[in-house]
Amino acid sequence: MSQQELEQRIIEITASISPLFSESIEAAEQRLNSLTKPPGSLGKLEEIARQVAGITGEIAPDLAKRAVIVMAGDHGVCEEGISAFPAEVTPQMVMNFLAGGAAVNVLARGAGADVFCVDMGVNADLAHDSLINCKTRKGTANMTREAAMAREEALAAIIGGYELTEKLSREQGYRMFATGEMGIGNTTASAALCTVLGSMTPDEAVGLGTGINEERRKHKVDVVCRAIACNTPDARDPLDVLAKVGGLEIAGLVGVILGAAANRCLVVIDGFISSAAALVAASIAPEAAAYMIGSHLSQEQGHRKLMEQIGLSPMIHLDMRLGEGTGAVLGFHFIDAAVRIMREMATFESAGVSRG
Amino acid sequence: MSQQELEQRIIEITASISPLFSESIEAAEQRLNSLTKPPGSLGKLEEIARQVAGITGEIAPDLAKRAVIVMAGDHGVCEEGISAFPAEVTPQMVMNFLAGGAAVNVLARGAGADVFCVDMGVNADLAHDSLINCKTRKGTANMTREAAMAREEALAAIIGGYELTEKLSREQGYRMFATGEMGIGNTTASAALCTVLGSMTPDEAVGLGTGINEERRKHKVDVVCRAIACNTPDARDPLDVLAKVGGLEIAGLVGVILGAAANRCLVVIDGFISSAAALVAASIAPEAAAYMIGSHLSQEQGHRKLMEQIGLSPMIHLDMRLGEGTGAVLGFHFIDAAVRIMREMATFESAGVSRG
Repeated sequence: MSQQELEQRIIEITASISPLFSESIEAAEQRLNSLTKPPGSLGKLEEIARQVAGITGEIAPDLAKRAVIVMAGDHGVCEEGISAFPAEVTPQMVMNFLAGGAAVNVLARGAGADVFCVDMGVNADLAHDSLINCKTRKGTANMTREAAMAREEALAAIIGGYELTEKLSREQGYRMFATGEMGIGNTTASAALCTVLGSMTPDEAVGLGTGINEERRKHKVDVVCRAIACNTPDARDPLDVLAKVGGLEIAGLVGVILGAAANRCLVVIDGFISSAAALVAASIAPEAAAYMIGSHLSQEQGHRKLMEQIGLSPMIHLDMRLGEGTGAVLGFHFIDAAVRIMREMATFESAGVSRG
Repeated sequence: MSQQELEQRIIEITASISPLFSESIEAAEQRLNSLTKPPGSLGKLEEIARQVAGITGEIAPDLAKRAVIVMAGDHGVCEEGISAFPAEVTPQMVMNFLAGGAAVNVLARGAGADVFCVDMGVNADLAHDSLINCKTRKGTANMTREAAMAREEALAAIIGGYELTEKLSREQGYRMFATGEMGIGNTTASAALCTVLGSMTPDEAVGLGTGINEERRKHKVDVVCRAIACNTPDARDPLDVLAKVGGLEIAGLVGVILGAAANRCLVVIDGFISSAAALVAASIAPEAAAYMIGSHLSQEQGHRKLMEQIGLSPMIHLDMRLGEGTGAVLGFHFIDAAVRIMREMATFESAGVSRG
């Protein structure tokens, strides 16, 4: 596709995202208030139940088909020494995902979710029957010296993520997605996105990633500042920001989120990097936010503020900082809980319980 | 049993609780650090994995046999008009638990847990094949006028909960318990316990319960103050406090917690009332605290401080305020996640992933 066609496709995708079904939300609310519990006493589970109804149009949909999409990409900015792990870990972990041995595989099995691993731009030649190839380029450029990606590369990566998600939804019946990622260096790109698109300072947005110390964190803040100064991304144009200081796997996740929303699927947002993708997606298509469900609060310091900016509320406080989609797949348990409440709980009438 | 025998039995129970297995905790730590993730990046899941090892002596035990014990009791203090619901709801909800229609039944099914419903002191004659009878008396007395229970009644209730839990563990193989309760008026008794045994003021400890307004909350604060003034419980003697301003179902849960600890089982603590029971249990037997796992942070205002005082940390933030064990059974999912991580994750060596 030409750049113009890519831009047009993004506009079409954005336009195809509809508001939630308000009648279904009301029906869910009515049912919740008939159940044997004080009104509102199940807290966010009740919010989720209403949101699920608004997304799917059903009070208690069958969400058994669920997937975590783990998008992998490398980051040229690793040259600046911003990560506790060497860049070679990205392809190594991709092979670990494909072999089923990573944390996200383990937690996905526990939540009944399938793992789809996508090469969005790993800096290695990877071959595996189960690896989904959406590679636009072998890693981003070093954003302290030039744009991480060309604009058309970012657009293509979004559309790649979108089309995969749409296909999984339409052809294979998936109705619920979790976002996951792997990419050494991607907390740095995410911090840059939060600085430009959110209202955070670099010092607020930059955290310890997979385990650097405070001295190296300060250096990472400086790297983010230099990347922004070098590229002068236009905050009014989220696609420009994504291309200049984002990442290929982050762009892919933007596509996953838009794809879920356009196909009336739930999308559970993982930690800091996934939330940065969610911020980009919501900046492009504000209607998409209604399809997102926050999962855990990461230990990465900028995550709380980032979630607030998107309007997400974390259900899970486990001080995790691993990414991969690990927090999001744990969130599936609570969505199951909310749907099960709608499907199975007795009403005041059926159980003969007095109202307050 | 005579009162002297009851006192002696509590002393024996307390003495039978051992510290965790430190070698197993170390072995768990070693395994965690060999897995393909940055050290510590799974946060509290790693803490749970160590705790599970320390409790059971196994790195990845089979915890499939799990139960939520829902203890029900009535409260004479309801005469003071402290609840949004009438006292008749306690027996009605017991029948709902037995029919499988309450929120805790629904969430327990989702977490693979069996529900045991215990009549610790409901003010009604209940009959059902599945109801476990541990009734000491039909509800407590109005604690603003006299002691809620006689000391021997509180001791008998603790021992009832203890023996049930021990039997489930030894005879039926249960290895993990969740605490649950039902008793209109029991946030008032719990607030009184927190005021005397914790370091909270009545105004900090008293919340909105199942849904009163601020005016009635102020009245509830006054009721707690009057109950304490009337009974002058001895803060150095937790059994005295429990008897005078506690509840029958709370005493039963103290027994469940001690029973779990004495039998090297995990015990997941639910919300405000369960945590008040945990505070009493830890006051009687400090070693028992090591067997407790915090689950959710209730919306009941005193819960955060109460958990801090016991040394528990909430994993789940769903703004729930229902009790019954609903938050605790959701916590089972995270214990499963921690054990699964230990059992299934690849190591740096097995997966060929570079360390940082």
